[in-house]
Amino acid sequence: MSNTSLLSIAKQLGLSKATVSKALRDSYEISAITKERVIKLAEELNYVPNAYASSLRNQKSKTIAVVLPEVTDSFFSLAINGIENIAIQKGYHVLIYLTHENLEREKAILKDFKSGRIEGFLMSVSSQTNNGQHINDAINKGMPVVFFDRIFEGVKIPTVTTDDFESAYEATTHLIKKGCTKISFLYISSSLSISNNRIQGFKEALKNAGIKYSKNNLVECKTDSKQTIDIVNKILKSSSKPNGIIASVEKLTAPVYEICRQLSIKIPQHLKLISFTNLQTASLLNPSLTTIEQPAFEMGKQAAITLFQILEKKNSYNIHQNKIIKSQLIERDSTKK
Amino acid sequence: MSNTSLLSIAKQLGLSKATVSKALRDSYEISAITKERVIKLAEELNYVPNAYASSLRNQKSKTIAVVLPEVTDSFFSLAINGIENIAIQKGYHVLIYLTHENLEREKAILKDFKSGRIEGFLMSVSSQTNNGQHINDAINKGMPVVFFDRIFEGVKIPTVTTDDFESAYEATTHLIKKGCTKISFLYISSSLSISNNRIQGFKEALKNAGIKYSKNNLVECKTDSKQTIDIVNKILKSSSKPNGIIASVEKLTAPVYEICRQLSIKIPQHLKLISFTNLQTASLLNPSLTTIEQPAFEMGKQAAITLFQILEKKNSYNIHQNKIIKSQLIERDSTKK
Repeated sequence: MSNTSLLSIAKQLGLSKATVSKALRDSYEISAITKERVIKLAEELNYVPNAYASSLRNQKSKTIAVVLPEVTDSFFSLAINGIENIAIQKGYHVLIYLTHENLEREKAILKDFKSGRIEGFLMSVSSQTNNGQHINDAINKGMPVVFFDRIFEGVKIPTVTTDDFESAYEATTHLIKKGCTKISFLYISSSLSISNNRIQGFKEALKNAGIKYSKNNLVECKTDSKQTIDIVNKILKSSSKPNGIIASVEKLTAPVYEICRQLSIKIPQHLKLISFTNLQTASLLNPSLTTIEQPAFEMGKQAAITLFQILEKKNSYNIHQNKIIKSQLIERDSTKK
Repeated sequence: MSNTSLLSIAKQLGLSKATVSKALRDSYEISAITKERVIKLAEELNYVPNAYASSLRNQKSKTIAVVLPEVTDSFFSLAINGIENIAIQKGYHVLIYLTHENLEREKAILKDFKSGRIEGFLMSVSSQTNNGQHINDAINKGMPVVFFDRIFEGVKIPTVTTDDFESAYEATTHLIKKGCTKISFLYISSSLSISNNRIQGFKEALKNAGIKYSKNNLVECKTDSKQTIDIVNKILKSSSKPNGIIASVEKLTAPVYEICRQLSIKIPQHLKLISFTNLQTASLLNPSLTTIEQPAFEMGKQAAITLFQILEKKNSYNIHQNKIIKSQLIERDSTKK
């Protein structure tokens, strides 16, 4: 960089020319905050190429992050193991940040990333995320991001998902084959990509089976299990109660079992149930649970592989790279004819 | 600090006097690594009091960490929620690091903390942790640490645990009352504090009931579930097979159910089972599972409260502060008479 450019940055930021020069050489004497300020301005003024600025920022932390809603869900805890499996091989640390399904937490976490703490991150958005500005901000700072499982449609980055549409279609068709005529589809948050895709698959399967769809087929539940219990209770007490339920999220499963027990509704005789879950105890439940098992570990692994490919090539970011890994229907007693 | 002291540090570290001075004033212009080097030497030479050095180090990251073996265990995932509950109130980020029960990973993680990334951390040691040097190193760097659940006896810091001895005593007595005469106690890693305390409670209960204890009562399992299945399979096929089992860790539960099914051993008729677990599906299993439910959320919360008390008072570190929160036996069908 020319002397004039150095001087211009130094003046604008109130630093010495030597400090600016050291910051751009990534000297250990300069703090991360100062480096970030210098690099940002140098980039804005087109004094350094993006790739160089990004490589300066990305050096040395040897750390990636995972941002996800919660860990009290077997999908996410298994996905983390898949991510760590790759990170360990690469000699990287993994930081896990939980949003607790809260958009403000998610924003605060991504803001924290700007300090140069991590080289890139993997993300499964919260159920409240209806805006991608905070994600775009992180990307614009030169931070590679890969979505896994729950993506935000408005932000174009590589993704690793499962076949939500197809597996919901399969789950619905399975219930219809087993004799269900009135099926309730339980979901949380309509702004979630996975909910939407699964709902579309559900509707399509009903349509192809000649079963009329109405809005009442869709039941929005809460992430809070007490509220979900109230909602499920109301449905199963109503005169138009379903004879089949699809729980599209793991945490919606236990409330259905509990309410059925309380109301003496027998699974599968009175009501058939299929859940999207990776619960290791699915086969041990009473009755054993038919599941759509998601490739959680493999999805975590592939998401991490994608992120490291970006980190290693530095900045070759294929925003159209979407890996889809198939889920699997495992038939057990909860949908027996 | 005197000019001579500043100069002496500067000379030894090959820095300018101005840089040393700025580092000791926690200037944003100085990198974390340089600050750490300066503070360390200043402390060693007794040029700054510990409290001041520690406060310099601890400024501004507004981040604590949790180091634990895994998240595919309901105890740890609930404990994390308890920790975050407090951290959110304090405006702090929580970084979750997983050791995967591996001592080398645990060491690498703690080493990473020295860069000033976090203000303090909570820890539940891995099943391989038979040495506390890495933990002492972190403490000696002025980093507050609180153990929760799995402690390492050799390192004296505040702890939050549950009543492992008493609850194992209660679990054993419960099985004896229900008619069990031959009880196997399944555990992982004898170097774990929780295993040891639970084993002691088990032995004491047998003794007080006049039941002879032999080494065969103790069955060491593996963190890998396939190996555990082989071990449980062997025991339940042997001529001296037990009529009662205590699974002292959650992941030892599912293998017992599975093997019993394969061998047509009926729970609770042929074998009674009680598990240390916070599985939300315990009441839905077939048969429903009698559990020792640990106060996971509350333990996480109290551990975080303890850490923040230390951070807020700065350096008033009561190494004798041990909070014990009681577990609860919840009787269900797996131990029915």
